[in-house]
Amino acid sequence: MSAYTGNLVCVRCGAVHPEPALELIGAGCPACVGANVLPQYDINVLPGVRPGWSRGRATLPLVDGQPGLFRYRALLPISDDVTPVSLGEGGTPVVELPRLADSIGLRGVWVKDESRNPTWSYKDRLAAVATTKAVELGAETVVVASTGNHGAAVAAYAARAGLRCVVLTLASVPATMKTLMQAYGAEVVALPTPADRWHLMGELVRARGWMAMSGYADPPAGSHPYGVDGYKTIAYELVEQLPAPPDAVVVPVAYGDGLAGIARGFADLAALGIIARVPRLIAAEPFGPLARALATGADTAGPVPVGPSVAFSTASPFGTQQSLAALRGSNGAAVATPDNDEIMDAQLALAGGSGLYLEASSVTAVVALRRAGLGPGETAVVIGTSTGLKDVGATAARLGEVPVIEPTIVALDKVLR
Amino acid sequence: MSAYTGNLVCVRCGAVHPEPALELIGAGCPACVGANVLPQYDINVLPGVRPGWSRGRATLPLVDGQPGLFRYRALLPISDDVTPVSLGEGGTPVVELPRLADSIGLRGVWVKDESRNPTWSYKDRLAAVATTKAVELGAETVVVASTGNHGAAVAAYAARAGLRCVVLTLASVPATMKTLMQAYGAEVVALPTPADRWHLMGELVRARGWMAMSGYADPPAGSHPYGVDGYKTIAYELVEQLPAPPDAVVVPVAYGDGLAGIARGFADLAALGIIARVPRLIAAEPFGPLARALATGADTAGPVPVGPSVAFSTASPFGTQQSLAALRGSNGAAVATPDNDEIMDAQLALAGGSGLYLEASSVTAVVALRRAGLGPGETAVVIGTSTGLKDVGATAARLGEVPVIEPTIVALDKVLR
Ligand SMILES: [Zn+2]
Ligand SMILES: [Zn+2]
Repeated sequence: MSAYTGNLVCVRCGAVHPEPALELIGAGCPACVGANVLPQYDINVLPGVRPGWSRGRATLPLVDGQPGLFRYRALLPISDDVTPVSLGEGGTPVVELPRLADSIGLRGVWVKDESRNPTWSYKDRLAAVATTKAVELGAETVVVASTGNHGAAVAAYAARAGLRCVVLTLASVPATMKTLMQAYGAEVVALPTPADRWHLMGELVRARGWMAMSGYADPPAGSHPYGVDGYKTIAYELVEQLPAPPDAVVVPVAYGDGLAGIARGFADLAALGIIARVPRLIAAEPFGPLARALATGADTAGPVPVGPSVAFSTASPFGTQQSLAALRGSNGAAVATPDNDEIMDAQLALAGGSGLYLEASSVTAVVALRRAGLGPGETAVVIGTSTGLKDVGATAARLGEVPVIEPTIVALDKVLR
Repeated sequence: MSAYTGNLVCVRCGAVHPEPALELIGAGCPACVGANVLPQYDINVLPGVRPGWSRGRATLPLVDGQPGLFRYRALLPISDDVTPVSLGEGGTPVVELPRLADSIGLRGVWVKDESRNPTWSYKDRLAAVATTKAVELGAETVVVASTGNHGAAVAAYAARAGLRCVVLTLASVPATMKTLMQAYGAEVVALPTPADRWHLMGELVRARGWMAMSGYADPPAGSHPYGVDGYKTIAYELVEQLPAPPDAVVVPVAYGDGLAGIARGFADLAALGIIARVPRLIAAEPFGPLARALATGADTAGPVPVGPSVAFSTASPFGTQQSLAALRGSNGAAVATPDNDEIMDAQLALAGGSGLYLEASSVTAVVALRRAGLGPGETAVVIGTSTGLKDVGATAARLGEVPVIEPTIVALDKVLR
């Protein structure tokens, strides 16, 4: 049923590794620095499907009766026998933003609202596929290094699957994020530095046989290879939902799992003859390691200097090989968004102008879109990765106190704008 | 196209009121205490639709090319000419809970996960239809009394529609809720008591011509009549999503807008011949005004004594006529859930056992389901009204601190369970 060949392939050197490969999951290619290994497919094996277009709508090779994003399991890297671990993820709406399109001078702009997933972020797509793989390979404990969305998603899916979950986080993570991860029953501990978490995770994989649900290479290579392909479904949904494939897709990026997965989904669609070419992928990143690598032609991205960022979940000094490959392969671009005031202004402008309240990291994609240099006839999709609810404190700091008034129109009029 | 007749009908005395009726919206029937007026339909006028069942799936009278829940606009109380105000609401998944069903001894239990809406609560269904009506009737300012979800939803849809929004709240509302409402650009003010808000809202409707997006009768009658019918779409989706109509639907209730709307949706489905009978509606309410009215045969519900409740968004001393009518009309029941520890334990049990983290008010429906006295062959749906993220503080108070450790397996083993 699935076109997955059972192999993982290095995004840099092309080395092929057969599954099962517990120590490759999260460690990246043993021969390359900062390069992930990702699943290989042979789309010629897809049986009985006729992808293409019918009455103006894309028709994909769907599998009936599957929950959430597993309707696309013919193009996911899981066994035909495994029962999906699903919370009804995916199928998120695209919301058109005509005022934003006008203000930038584009033909159309949509937000893919990924806050509409089970733990309210796009990481649920990764967690659904990665947890299904954990069950398929017989893992009993999963471990993840995360400052929030990723850990919450893995904790929820582990709870759904009945697996033990250990989260390695940082003391500086917002309280809301810690509570969310703990609420799902995960055992959450904080370590002094990001690198401490990666090294401890590597030890746990080797000594205990736990499955790593996030990357632990140093410098980073990206996340769980099977999980990355959960993001392919964003591309599939976009061509099903929009009147035509977009010219550009803007993605907030730390280690580029989402960006790489979305690019791979579009590559599948091109290989299946459903779209003519992969849209331009545009990375939004607070400090610009990918932007610098693209400008200089370097083959690794970062480290670059970093400072405090409201977009805490994407504020990385490093890019990854999988991100660079996705950008170069789509004639894409990367835009640095270091200005915290600009990000927070854009968050409130989007909520007040369109009714979408997204986390600061998501909003970097709106900021990047304004600078991406797209042409006036073009269309773009912004990936709204998560809800603003996960860090309301940052928003509250820019809003006034709620006044307490006497219950009269006179008193009300004094405080209204 | 729509079967809506243009009239509003009192749920108690049956008096018929023609639209437009700005002062009826939120005030309830002028002749009855605590009774809402709700839209009237003539389903015989539905043109060219053949509702029923096809290959085991319910087929409803859908309108193609409409966003979000407006695919059901043939059964919604809006003009055929108005452009819907939509953020892609509705279409939320049902997530099966086999372990909960086993533990209660039911054939099947599903959560309808309404945290997957644009502002992460089921109030978006009300706000989408109410705001569309506001645009249809030419309102420029909307006003809402709310302690959270309702106000946030109205603020977001007003932003989407370009309407001014004023929220009348209470000083005691959690900070997250205030920030969320303000983030959408609403003007938020706090008043001393709930009744102060209702009286001021009535004055604003009469003196300024603002549209009330929530009820202001005292005692309460329920919300915006057109908005209430937004909840009908939950019933429509359930029969499309489930293998068969459920035997019971459990709904957290304050003023019963959701309960009444869902019951009305099932009544439509019965009238269209799609289902044989309306499922039993079961109200979960912290302090039990409806339970007492059902037990005593009273024709008004409450006031009953109240105390502090973690389910702050449903902790009302009053029930409403529309709730009583929905319960009696479906051979339903009401269950009081006053025990805060039981609610919070159930919240963590659901998150840790199934990967669904819902607000405390939603979890009262799980608590109520255990006491509803359903039979072993029966199936039930629990309406998960909103996300736990909106009051994480209550959850955090029951969880331990996240320990900070040295990055070694030895240190980790000391703190793991
Ligand atoms: Zn390699
Ligand atoms: Zn009446």
